Amino acid sequence: MAAEHTVKAFEQELRRLSNLISQMGGVAEAQVEAAVQAVARRDVDLAGRVLQADSQLDEYERQIEQEAVRMLALRQPMGVDLREVLAALKISADLERTGDYAANSAKRSIALAQLPAVRPASAIPRMGRLVQEMLKDVLDAYVDRDVEKAVAAWHRDEELDDLYTSLFREVLTYMMEDPRNITPCTHLLFIAKNLERAGDHATNIAETVHFLVVGQPLTGARPKGDKSSFAVVAPEPAADLPAGP
Amino acid sequence: MAAEHTVKAFEQELRRLSNLISQMGGVAEAQVEAAVQAVARRDVDLAGRVLQADSQLDEYERQIEQEAVRMLALRQPMGVDLREVLAALKISADLERTGDYAANSAKRSIALAQLPAVRPASAIPRMGRLVQEMLKDVLDAYVDRDVEKAVAAWHRDEELDDLYTSLFREVLTYMMEDPRNITPCTHLLFIAKNLERAGDHATNIAETVHFLVVGQPLTGARPKGDKSSFAVVAPEPAADLPAGP
Repeated sequence: MAAEHTVKAFEQELRRLSNLISQMGGVAEAQVEAAVQAVARRDVDLAGRVLQADSQLDEYERQIEQEAVRMLALRQPMGVDLREVLAALKISADLERTGDYAANSAKRSIALAQLPAVRPASAIPRMGRLVQEMLKDVLDAYVDRDVEKAVAAWHRDEELDDLYTSLFREVLTYMMEDPRNITPCTHLLFIAKNLERAGDHATNIAETVHFLVVGQPLTGARPKGDKSSFAVVAPEPAADLPAGP
Repeated sequence: MAAEHTVKAFEQELRRLSNLISQMGGVAEAQVEAAVQAVARRDVDLAGRVLQADSQLDEYERQIEQEAVRMLALRQPMGVDLREVLAALKISADLERTGDYAANSAKRSIALAQLPAVRPASAIPRMGRLVQEMLKDVLDAYVDRDVEKAVAAWHRDEELDDLYTSLFREVLTYMMEDPRNITPCTHLLFIAKNLERAGDHATNIAETVHFLVVGQPLTGARPKGDKSSFAVVAPEPAADLPAGP
């Protein structure tokens, strides 16, 4: 009877932990969306709201960590129960970092709004949408313990890396065209990098869901994508240089 | 007798876990140092070795995670013992990320070596040294359970953020001076950002050491430094524009 009571209490605690993750995931999704909107619409007020809301995610992480450590200490879970608690710890850390990337993008959107508009900014919403979809999918996969959905989201990170790499090259050419584009384009590059990193955290969550459900790490080489790190882009030959034979 | 044996075995396991962290920390430090050297000396071979060695850190993380989860399941530790195991999990994740930043910087140094040398590259070793010092200090603090040392390292992150912010502004002016600087300078910006992020992970480790020893989170607002996200840098008025009255 007492044991049964303990099991029930533990199940309730696990459910509460799982709900906290879902709520936190919702906030992280909303932050990414708002940050991307702030960039696209040059909306400084919205950016300010994103910066203010970031502490919510820190608070969620603290709460989940506290709860998880308490459960480990008091309930001493094993097997899938232990994996549940560890998964909550990991996912909350990934969501908190995702929020940091959204907040940094919002910060940069405030600088961008004071600078001339540049065309490649339009690629940011595309990257943002993809990140949001990945985030939504891995969170749904977490709620439904759906490994296939998690793995599908994991594979989409390649698409995101490709978007990032082509944006990177495009942005460099804009910078070369006109020095007034350099500062806004630099902020755009970092915003794009933030989104690419947020995508990495979504894939981390997919890996955690896989481990939670299957009890084994997700293996198989996903081609790691950021090809931009190797990029060598040269400007058009300057007018004052001989064009060659 | 059996209980005493269990306690002793657990203590041995904790010591092994702690040693693994120290070893992993040594590899992470070496990776940061080598990556910075590869940038400074345009040493493509060294960069290649950094990229190859990165999998060691992944392997350490996997091993530490496996060991920690096994200890949580079998030993069901409480109090400071539980914090020991959780700290190992967290620190290994931070070291693994630090290694990722070193590897990405090494990748970029390969691109840089194919491009004209740019002056602000000299600020990178300064940032690199600071990151290494912070990393060394927090790892020493971990080994010695030295909270004061951890907090001192934590505070140095501000210095790193200041170095990063001034490098950021300097690099933008170089880009504006000559479009041929744009690609190398962009890689430099990301390398500097990588080092700034590695510093953030060192501060995470400091916080973990604090929690491990004191049992309470490290509070007190450390002014979060990346002021470059707000930077608005304008080029000199272009020669083809009227200079104004």
